[in-house]
Amino acid sequence: MRMVATEDQDNQGLEALMGEMGRRARGAARILANASAIQKNEALLMAAAELRARLPELLIANAADMADAEAKGIKGSFLDRLMLDASRIDAIAKAVADIAALHDPVGRMLAEWTQPNGLRFERVSTPLGVIGVIFESRPNVTADAGALCLKSGNASILRAGSESFRTSSVIAEAMRAGLRAAGLPEDAIQLVPTRAREAVGLMLKGLDGNIDVIVPRGGKSLVARVQNEARVPVFAHLEGICHVYVHAKADLAMAVSIVLNAKLRRTGVCGSAETLLMDQSVVATHLKPLLAALIDKGCSIRGDAQVMAADPRATEATEADWRTEYLDAIISVKVVSGLDEAIDHIETYGSHHTEAIITDDHAAAEAFLNSVDSAIVLHNASTQFADGGEFGFGAEIGIATGRMHARGPVGVDQLTSFKYRVHGTGQTRP
Amino acid sequence: MRMVATEDQDNQGLEALMGEMGRRARGAARILANASAIQKNEALLMAAAELRARLPELLIANAADMADAEAKGIKGSFLDRLMLDASRIDAIAKAVADIAALHDPVGRMLAEWTQPNGLRFERVSTPLGVIGVIFESRPNVTADAGALCLKSGNASILRAGSESFRTSSVIAEAMRAGLRAAGLPEDAIQLVPTRAREAVGLMLKGLDGNIDVIVPRGGKSLVARVQNEARVPVFAHLEGICHVYVHAKADLAMAVSIVLNAKLRRTGVCGSAETLLMDQSVVATHLKPLLAALIDKGCSIRGDAQVMAADPRATEATEADWRTEYLDAIISVKVVSGLDEAIDHIETYGSHHTEAIITDDHAAAEAFLNSVDSAIVLHNASTQFADGGEFGFGAEIGIATGRMHARGPVGVDQLTSFKYRVHGTGQTRP
Repeated sequence: MRMVATEDQDNQGLEALMGEMGRRARGAARILANASAIQKNEALLMAAAELRARLPELLIANAADMADAEAKGIKGSFLDRLMLDASRIDAIAKAVADIAALHDPVGRMLAEWTQPNGLRFERVSTPLGVIGVIFESRPNVTADAGALCLKSGNASILRAGSESFRTSSVIAEAMRAGLRAAGLPEDAIQLVPTRAREAVGLMLKGLDGNIDVIVPRGGKSLVARVQNEARVPVFAHLEGICHVYVHAKADLAMAVSIVLNAKLRRTGVCGSAETLLMDQSVVATHLKPLLAALIDKGCSIRGDAQVMAADPRATEATEADWRTEYLDAIISVKVVSGLDEAIDHIETYGSHHTEAIITDDHAAAEAFLNSVDSAIVLHNASTQFADGGEFGFGAEIGIATGRMHARGPVGVDQLTSFKYRVHGTGQTRP
Repeated sequence: MRMVATEDQDNQGLEALMGEMGRRARGAARILANASAIQKNEALLMAAAELRARLPELLIANAADMADAEAKGIKGSFLDRLMLDASRIDAIAKAVADIAALHDPVGRMLAEWTQPNGLRFERVSTPLGVIGVIFESRPNVTADAGALCLKSGNASILRAGSESFRTSSVIAEAMRAGLRAAGLPEDAIQLVPTRAREAVGLMLKGLDGNIDVIVPRGGKSLVARVQNEARVPVFAHLEGICHVYVHAKADLAMAVSIVLNAKLRRTGVCGSAETLLMDQSVVATHLKPLLAALIDKGCSIRGDAQVMAADPRATEATEADWRTEYLDAIISVKVVSGLDEAIDHIETYGSHHTEAIITDDHAAAEAFLNSVDSAIVLHNASTQFADGGEFGFGAEIGIATGRMHARGPVGVDQLTSFKYRVHGTGQTRP
């Protein structure tokens, strides 16, 4: 009985704490919306300096996080993402300073026109407001996400994975010190100061309207939970089931080069290809060499009957394979009758993330780029270009596959909204 | 017991029906996304012709709706909105034809750039997908909303108020006939074929991901329900508590002209002013004439102590007045110490819809336009310009006060998303 009462009290305490964070974020966002580019950049550069200055503190905090994680039996790649050393801390600081060097995304004139009555209309970019970022083990997200939000004039409420809590706390303090040094409100970047899991649920409810958008950074289960439970908009992709379609007019050498890169450059990223679609008309010439090139590089093949006939090392693909994001050196391969079946397959099994066509036929490429309803569609290029840096955005907070507001790599420009500024000389409406 | 079983069966039937509408809409949306501007415009012009051709049928359906509504004891303005006659039907048809004349919002090149590796990036506008529109008595929304969605390449699922069900059904049939005549899928425009209230709840849940955005058209209680219950994005404004701030450097004649227009041109529209903020430094010169002008035109004043002192016909404003959208010939008037207090008042009590400053001081105007976080901010112009037509958008499906995706008047351009088309020559990512 006492246990329950205490838990209720704890929950009430957490709700009050999170509610207060939301109000502080909103207040900071109002000030940040009118901060100059110079002031925001000063905060970022000071934050980068603070991160470097706190190297010893960061290494101590990270060692404690690592020790706890290892004691819990946490495994290799997760531990590697958690771990910081001097060079990684320097890279985190450099990434924050690099964000200062980007163009200012706030106050851009998006459109400008004058109506016959003399009213002059301006559509000008503005910050979104308060961005909630929920992430897992990588402590650098505290710096990256906080910096991207700050650059775009948004306050951020950051929820770090519990394993990186100490490390993320030191990083957040450095970011806040940068804000203070530039005369900006430190509450523009807040880290949720508790490991309590219930904090995530409260953020997903929007903290009484004080979170405008949620960005989840982590594995599929985190993204799925956020997409299912959030009562505020979410910028995310659940998975990247990316396709490469080798069209009837594909150059074989280019197809081999792009397919190998799309699948194997890095298999764990969302832009890696998971399914290869082979046009029936090039099965005789292109299929064997493509399969052999993939298998030579250590990739497993799951294919249909023609694929298994072309290379005995291929195993049979099940219906589930077409819906699977392997994130590994495995690819599903299907022969399609032509462009229409390729598009149908992508629309049926894809995740609206990134798809590529390889062809020398301009009309086929145009039809593919127009018809495939994905955030990114490429002609004669690798799906692994699905990355804000490769787009020239400088940095991204994530990749979105929804069609509302942001789509594709979410850089600083996508973290803005707009308003209409209307200039009159006394006009009244008839 | 049998009752319950029947209701359950009915609910299951409704869920199946609505689910099927969602799937049909998604299928139609895929085809519509690739329809040419010519084909969409042909469908709109054919729909306009069909509306005119169905005049007798529309009048009969509308007479039946009107008779039912009157029998239910429904009142004046609601009945007026429901009523159609030959000239109103002609206006509905003309509005649909006018939408055909707008620019095509799909396939616009929003940005284009080339990276150093030769990859050419295009950001191109695309439809959003499927738009759910929930509206009350005005049957013309069936045509307007269906036409705006069609023009922007989106399928629509329209839920008419139960009182206008027969009239809306005939209008929807005309729109679908237009689609068929142009060789486009008629399911691009679907009217929910039942008066069952539960259909709204199912739409708000998104029909298994087959509704991308909801637009409510109607009174505050409808919008509030949609905003609270929707699990998909909503384009809406709950209310328009619009402010006019008469600054220290305001010209009196311009202030009188704009305030009268902002409040009284039409009191029932969302862009009508509800609060007048008077700068302390012009109280002596501007307050009395402004109050007198408003009262002369039949407007009631609710004011603070200085306002009541300036005109004995003013009554005392309570805290609730600053939060009230009167939609009537009533205005709340408050004296503020200057620009900062005006902005604070607007941020505290406003609805982020539309606000105006009247001043000859350029710097004050800029500060107001930058600091006020509303969809529309005006300098020396009436708040009643808050309208897509006045912006030059041609038509609007509504006005949004959120900061996600659409903001301000939602015209055909705001009913689009975008994709990135990337053109390569064999590039792979290093």
